[in-house]
Amino acid sequence: LIARVKSAAAGSAVSARNRAIIAGIGDDCCVLRLPAGHEALITTDFSLEGVHFRRDWESAEATGHRCLARGLSDIAAMGGTPLAAFLSLALPPDLRQQWVDGFMRGLLKLAKEFGVGLAGGDTAASRTGVIADIIVVGSAPKGSAVMRSGARPGDSIYVTGRLGAAARRISELASARQRRWPDVLRTALPEPRIKIGERLRQRRLASAMIDVSDGLSTDLSHICEESGVGAEIHADRVPRAQVVGLRQPVDLRFALHGGDDYELLFTAKPSAKIPLGIAGVPVTKVGLITRSKQMVLIAHGGARQTLRPRGWEHFGRRS
Amino acid sequence: LIARVKSAAAGSAVSARNRAIIAGIGDDCCVLRLPAGHEALITTDFSLEGVHFRRDWESAEATGHRCLARGLSDIAAMGGTPLAAFLSLALPPDLRQQWVDGFMRGLLKLAKEFGVGLAGGDTAASRTGVIADIIVVGSAPKGSAVMRSGARPGDSIYVTGRLGAAARRISELASARQRRWPDVLRTALPEPRIKIGERLRQRRLASAMIDVSDGLSTDLSHICEESGVGAEIHADRVPRAQVVGLRQPVDLRFALHGGDDYELLFTAKPSAKIPLGIAGVPVTKVGLITRSKQMVLIAHGGARQTLRPRGWEHFGRRS
Repeated sequence: LIARVKSAAAGSAVSARNRAIIAGIGDDCCVLRLPAGHEALITTDFSLEGVHFRRDWESAEATGHRCLARGLSDIAAMGGTPLAAFLSLALPPDLRQQWVDGFMRGLLKLAKEFGVGLAGGDTAASRTGVIADIIVVGSAPKGSAVMRSGARPGDSIYVTGRLGAAARRISELASARQRRWPDVLRTALPEPRIKIGERLRQRRLASAMIDVSDGLSTDLSHICEESGVGAEIHADRVPRAQVVGLRQPVDLRFALHGGDDYELLFTAKPSAKIPLGIAGVPVTKVGLITRSKQMVLIAHGGARQTLRPRGWEHFGRRS
Repeated sequence: LIARVKSAAAGSAVSARNRAIIAGIGDDCCVLRLPAGHEALITTDFSLEGVHFRRDWESAEATGHRCLARGLSDIAAMGGTPLAAFLSLALPPDLRQQWVDGFMRGLLKLAKEFGVGLAGGDTAASRTGVIADIIVVGSAPKGSAVMRSGARPGDSIYVTGRLGAAARRISELASARQRRWPDVLRTALPEPRIKIGERLRQRRLASAMIDVSDGLSTDLSHICEESGVGAEIHADRVPRAQVVGLRQPVDLRFALHGGDDYELLFTAKPSAKIPLGIAGVPVTKVGLITRSKQMVLIAHGGARQTLRPRGWEHFGRRS
């Protein structure tokens, strides 16, 4: 198993023709050259079987895709450009080769799409379940990375795309127990918003940014905490995902608290001209940054209630 | 548990006062500034319970120390200087807080010793056993990193320190089954050879380098493979570890095939003047790089036998 992963990975590093990677797999470290005047952006994300994914709930390709998408999304949230990925992968001895091949296929297809070479990692035997840790290294011009800490009272709050599809899918799967739900599984795979992040950073449009990996309410609370501010969100402005086979968009709770959407949540000065769409993806104003350090949800009629960070907890995922 | 890890980590990033880390824990990515004219060196290493360590075989501090030492040793093997570390850590819910505190203490003490800030990572719940993945980022001046591929026929082969103590210890523990062996556990913790690696790189003394993490025979085979050469090793020149309580140094098999010593194995041109010791650590010439693509072990009397890469396999570690 491990040998196949290594050979698949080695092939990709070459085919990516990534000029940043001076030396990749086959030495003690990868040697990476950053563009002149750039800083390195580094992020790591676990994908643990039974915690972040279940093999009976989705294809191996989807799991491989999402494993890398989580890291790329963090680079997008800084306004960065991804350069290289590193995969630490531990596999149980009885795992089918077919699954491993599918996982690597899904991961490497996404890597190729974003010009990211798989430049290293580690492999091991796992006693139980698949253990993957993805590390993505990107870069941004010195001092230009968009942090979580830059939101100021009066800034508008925006979100890309539509939220809640992933959470609704997991909710359906969890309630069905062991049954497979092919229609639900056909949910589109998350597309890391690299281009949108780059555009916002280049034009200095965003004052703070984060990706929606743990749910809007939880990720917004991180911006509020790091920036020392509060927020008001208008419930009827939150863009809810439309799921195939359903007439209505997903419930508000999925859009507010559901994780795994990998859209971008950002703030911008009132004077900033934010387009209605960037790189073909809708951008929606959902609220306002406030001086009071609380998060408030404003209903259609104007009623206000406290918005608590309760990112979607599927099968005890968040700890 | 996770909250305590995060607070311990956040404290360390500040206390390290590492000027390379522009933004650490608390954003989507760490922002890292490399010294001008440097390339990034990146390495990742798993430490999995039951695969790489056992909680009943050593203290939590020792496990934390070794977790980071594995990554630092890879930076040393390139001649690099470590800048920042990232820890992805998944913990079983029933783990004692005391163990986690000890693990972080051992890891952070070593990080401080080498001026490395803990700049990020991921945390999760584990269904079984402790899962740690350490990522270390370092740097070296452009084009100066020492690769595995630079060995040429006629080069001498050197090793730092003495080999085999870790493998002998594990052999003792494994044969004792569940019993604790306090004396054996008192084996010194591996010290990453950062200073030696830097010295060899600065003076351009090493033509190829690797760290002895999988055992001399296996790690030498990596140099031979990447350089397209072979090697002759003189059995009686291999520096064998002296273990407390034993009159004789450890058996040759531990020194030849034992992993986890984290010494440096390097090659140098015949004309290179290699000191007998660097940074207080002995440096020993153990053999010669050859044109034939085989590895040969030469016994005391001159008898030659094939040297096979059979890095020490403790409890099925290598896959």
